[in-house]
Parts: sequence; C-alpha cells; structure tokens
Amino acid sequence: MDVREIPIEKLDTQTFIAERIEEIRSDVGDGLAVNALSGGVDSSVVTILGHKALGDRLRTFFINSGLMREGEPEHIVAVFRDLGVTVEHIHAEDRFFAALKGRTDPEEKREAITQTFYRDVFGDLVREIGAKHLLQGTNYTDVEETVAGIKRQHNILEQLGLDPEKMYGYRVIEPLIRLRKSGIRKVGETVGLPAELYTRPPFPGPALAARVIGEVTPDRVATVRWATQIVEEELSGSGAFQYLAILHEDRVTGIRAGKRDFGLQIEVRCWESTDAKIGSPTRLSYEVLDRLAERITTDVPGVVSVTYNVTRKPPSTIEAI
Amino acid sequence: MDVREIPIEKLDTQTFIAERIEEIRSDVGDGLAVNALSGGVDSSVVTILGHKALGDRLRTFFINSGLMREGEPEHIVAVFRDLGVTVEHIHAEDRFFAALKGRTDPEEKREAITQTFYRDVFGDLVREIGAKHLLQGTNYTDVEETVAGIKRQHNILEQLGLDPEKMYGYRVIEPLIRLRKSGIRKVGETVGLPAELYTRPPFPGPALAARVIGEVTPDRVATVRWATQIVEEELSGSGAFQYLAILHEDRVTGIRAGKRDFGLQIEVRCWESTDAKIGSPTRLSYEVLDRLAERITTDVPGVVSVTYNVTRKPPSTIEAI
Repeated sequence: MDVREIPIEKLDTQTFIAERIEEIRSDVGDGLAVNALSGGVDSSVVTILGHKALGDRLRTFFINSGLMREGEPEHIVAVFRDLGVTVEHIHAEDRFFAALKGRTDPEEKREAITQTFYRDVFGDLVREIGAKHLLQGTNYTDVEETVAGIKRQHNILEQLGLDPEKMYGYRVIEPLIRLRKSGIRKVGETVGLPAELYTRPPFPGPALAARVIGEVTPDRVATVRWATQIVEEELSGSGAFQYLAILHEDRVTGIRAGKRDFGLQIEVRCWESTDAKIGSPTRLSYEVLDRLAERITTDVPGVVSVTYNVTRKPPSTIEAI
Repeated sequence: MDVREIPIEKLDTQTFIAERIEEIRSDVGDGLAVNALSGGVDSSVVTILGHKALGDRLRTFFINSGLMREGEPEHIVAVFRDLGVTVEHIHAEDRFFAALKGRTDPEEKREAITQTFYRDVFGDLVREIGAKHLLQGTNYTDVEETVAGIKRQHNILEQLGLDPEKMYGYRVIEPLIRLRKSGIRKVGETVGLPAELYTRPPFPGPALAARVIGEVTPDRVATVRWATQIVEEELSGSGAFQYLAILHEDRVTGIRAGKRDFGLQIEVRCWESTDAKIGSPTRLSYEVLDRLAERITTDVPGVVSVTYNVTRKPPSTIEAI
C-alpha cells in the first residue's frame, strides 16, 4: 500500500475520492465490510466513501460508550440518515462504565476503553456479521506519530481479539492514510458532508473520559458533559482550533447560599493551532470568560470554580489526560 | 471592652494610637506580654503599638512554620529590627511538617497547623516566659464572622493549652478589635510602619499550606513557594487586592523534550476586591498571563500547566482551601 503523504497543495479531491471508491470496491469485491463511526471528520469521511463504494454491503456502527457529548449519538445518526446512510446505534454504556469502575490511572482508563471498544463491543459485531473487511480512518499524522513512538502502534485485528492464526483473509482498509487533517476536511467538503462535520474540532478517542481527571463514573461524565455543552455553545463562534472542559478531581472551597461548599472545579481550554503539534491559548475576552464561569457555576451542579488554561503546547498538551 | 465598630470616616488615627498605647500600658501594668508576629498588617500594627506601650516588656515572636514565602521570616525580622523592635525567630519547621504528614483533608490540615502553632510552639513560649498578657490582632471583621458563624470562635487561651482552671489572671488584649482592614492600614501608616507592611495583601493564616491541595510536604511547599514568588513579582504592580498561586494535587499530561510527562499544575488567582467579601478576577492582559505561564513552567521543577481563575467570589472563595 502506498503510504506517502499527499500534501494539501497537491490534493485534487475529486480524483482522490474517485480513486478511493474504486480501491475500496476492488478490495472488498462482493464481500461485507464494517466500520465504526464516531462523528469525527476522519470516520465520517470514511463512512461516506465506504457507502459510495459498497452501499449496504458496508455496515456502519455508532458505538455509544456513554462517554459522548449531549445528544451526540442521536444527532450523528440523524445527520447520516439525511445523507442516505443507515448507521446502527449500539448501546454499550453499561459495558464501558463497568470497565472503568474504580480506575483512576489515565493509562488504565484509556486501556479499559480501548479494550471495551475493540475487543468486546466492536469485536463481537465483526464476528457476528462475518465481515472480513474493516474500514478505518487512520491518517498520515497517526502514521508519523506511530513511527516517532508518540502513539502506540495499534494492530486493529489484535485489538478486535481475533486470533492471529485465524486472521488470514481479514483486511484493514485505510483510505485516508496519505492525508493530514486539513486534506481530510477538504475531501469531506467535496464528498458532500455537511459543514458541521467536515469543520468539526478534533475530539479525543476516549471521548469525555479524556476530560475527567480521576474515576470516570456516569455522574462525573454528566458533569463534564454539561460543562462541555456550555463551552461549545459559547466558543463555537470563536474560530479556535479546539475548545474543551475538564473536570478536575481536586476539590476547592466555594460558597453557596452563604455557606462553605467544598465543590468541583472545571478547567476550560481553548486553543489556537493549525496542526495540534504546537498551540497557544486563545486570547478570549474577559466578557466571554466571565460568561463561561457564570454559566458553568450556575448551571452545572456542584461546580464552584472555573479556570482557564494559559499554558502553551508544549509544555502543555491539548487535552489534560 | 468596647467592641463597637469605628467606621473609617470617624477614625482619627493619632487619637486611636494614643488611646490604645495608654490602654495596653494600663492593662499590663508592670507585667510581661507576648505576641506572635506573622508580618501581616494586623500583627504588624499590634507589634508596633505593643512595643510603643511596653518596650522590652513585650516579647515578640516570629514562628517559622516552614510554610512561609521565600525569605519571609528573615525579611520581617529585619524590617522590625530597622524599626527598633527585636523579633525572636523561632524555628519550628520540623514540628509543623511532622503534624501535617499524611494529611490531605483541608480541615485536618488547618487543625494540625492551628494546634501546632498555638498549643505546641507558642503555648510553650508563653508558659516558659510566664507572660500573662497576650496581644492579638483580632479585627472587627473577625468578630462579625464569628457572630455570623462563618469563622469558628477561637478562644486563644484554650488554644494555648492553658487549663481553664488556671486561666485566672491571663488576659488577651485586642487593640484592633474595633477596626476593619482599611482602618488598620491607616493606623499602620500613621504609626510609622513601612508602606510594604501596611499595604500588604492579605496572606492566609495557614500560609502556603492553604495553597497546597493534598498533602503538605517540604517538597510540595517548595514548589508552591517558587510559583508564589513568580506570581508576586509579576503581579505586585497590578494594583490587585490579592494574588496567589495554588499547587493542585491532580496531575495533567505535558510534554518535556518531546516526551510525555505527567506533571504538576499551578492555578493562579488574582482578585479585585475591597473587603474580600465579594471579588472578581483581575482582567490581566494575555501578555502577563503568558509570561506567568512561561516563567512558572520553565523555572518551577515538574510544573507543565498553569491556569488562571476566572470565577467570581461567590461562588468561589479567595483561597482554594
């Protein structure tokens, strides 16, 4: 497979789309394929390309981990329904929260989500359907980061819990592997995705679990989900690269109705960046910061304090965990 | 004792000072008195008034808890030496850190400091000297907050571990009890304190321990001390009511020399307020915030992230614990 980068200035999206559709058709032949859609730009573009190539022979699943943003699963399914693509909504909330129970170490939390997603939930679906072709939204930055050792190499077949002895015949198709995010957005526009999807800010794989420091419980996810909704409402017009809310584990003193209240703290981050490699905090006005703090401490139960990240990347990272 | 408030517009500082000196002389007679000086405006004014009234018959102690800011004990002792007042510097760092070891609950930490300060260290000094008169910087806001149930009523004699049966003859003198902070600052100016002392921003009783979320160890205090010094250097010219650095217990992901580094986070707070009852975050420029983040993450070992508080009081409080 050709994995050399296609720089954005050399990308002809029409040709790229036609070639990828042809490639997927030829790879899958008359078999079945599956993919998991998160609603992010990579998996959204893969879903559209796959359905243009295979129609109903591609089964697309939205795996609901219970870690998504407010209304996100229903909304993504509805957007694709309008595009003529059936997405199957898989409720797996209980399995994810069971796997996360009692875990506070970030690596363990991440691993529990990966295992539940691939081996337990998606793995079961792949085996049940008997599909031997998996469409994945791997992009050029993922490849680079794997080579550089920043990301762990993920062998998706192993992650699915497929016995290497029985792997013969399985095939992973990665139509976006030669593009970076900016190229994928252009392809998304050309292929007919609505703007809300192809301009979507990045969202981490572990979803809201990446925004909860400490144990990830349904209550704590509900707290960060509510704060996230406020942050997205207030900052979606900012033109920033990414914006997010983080629920801290530390508690801080606050006052409610004249009484001491040892409460929760939400950290807001909003980034200027072009490629997520380096970034700086968006210089939001104090009117905006004030409104964020006011809305979050008023609307989200238990929150008494809101902070704004003022550190560049590096030494910070975009997300907190 | 008259404890009615003297409003600042009715305060004649010259008369007030003369009356308090006379009162202290008459209360103490030819006995001995002691007081503890922290360097805050209340205890500084009490120290000056006491020495004007009693000369060497007032013994003034600076109790070094190991929780003070960089160079603070030596500096306060030197400032009073220049004013002709001998302050005895008591090293009690080990006793405080022993009492704080393993404690993470804010109430327990506060209690450990109070007990160590009053019962163990200051109590020993009072008993050793045989002084029956204690000068205290209690102000009108303390009285009000005790009445309102916001602050716990502190009976200093009980705190000193003095048996109530044997308390007969002990006397607590509170020369500032009818003034609020603004009045005390005016008195400090008139009585000849240097401006750095009578304009000093408030600093919490538990000192830097109030700025450490989680266990208070010598290392963690060193971290927040360093960050505090940077914050005070950068913000002392801001005209703000108070500015502080808080070391969080939560760890967040950062990058150092291209590698993932699970590091520390410092929260900066800077307040506009007149009386600490309500407050709003100072609208610091992003140039200042950027420099704070840059200096703290570069100079303070282990820190990868700096945030700025954007919440008003209420629902936040000035300090975090």
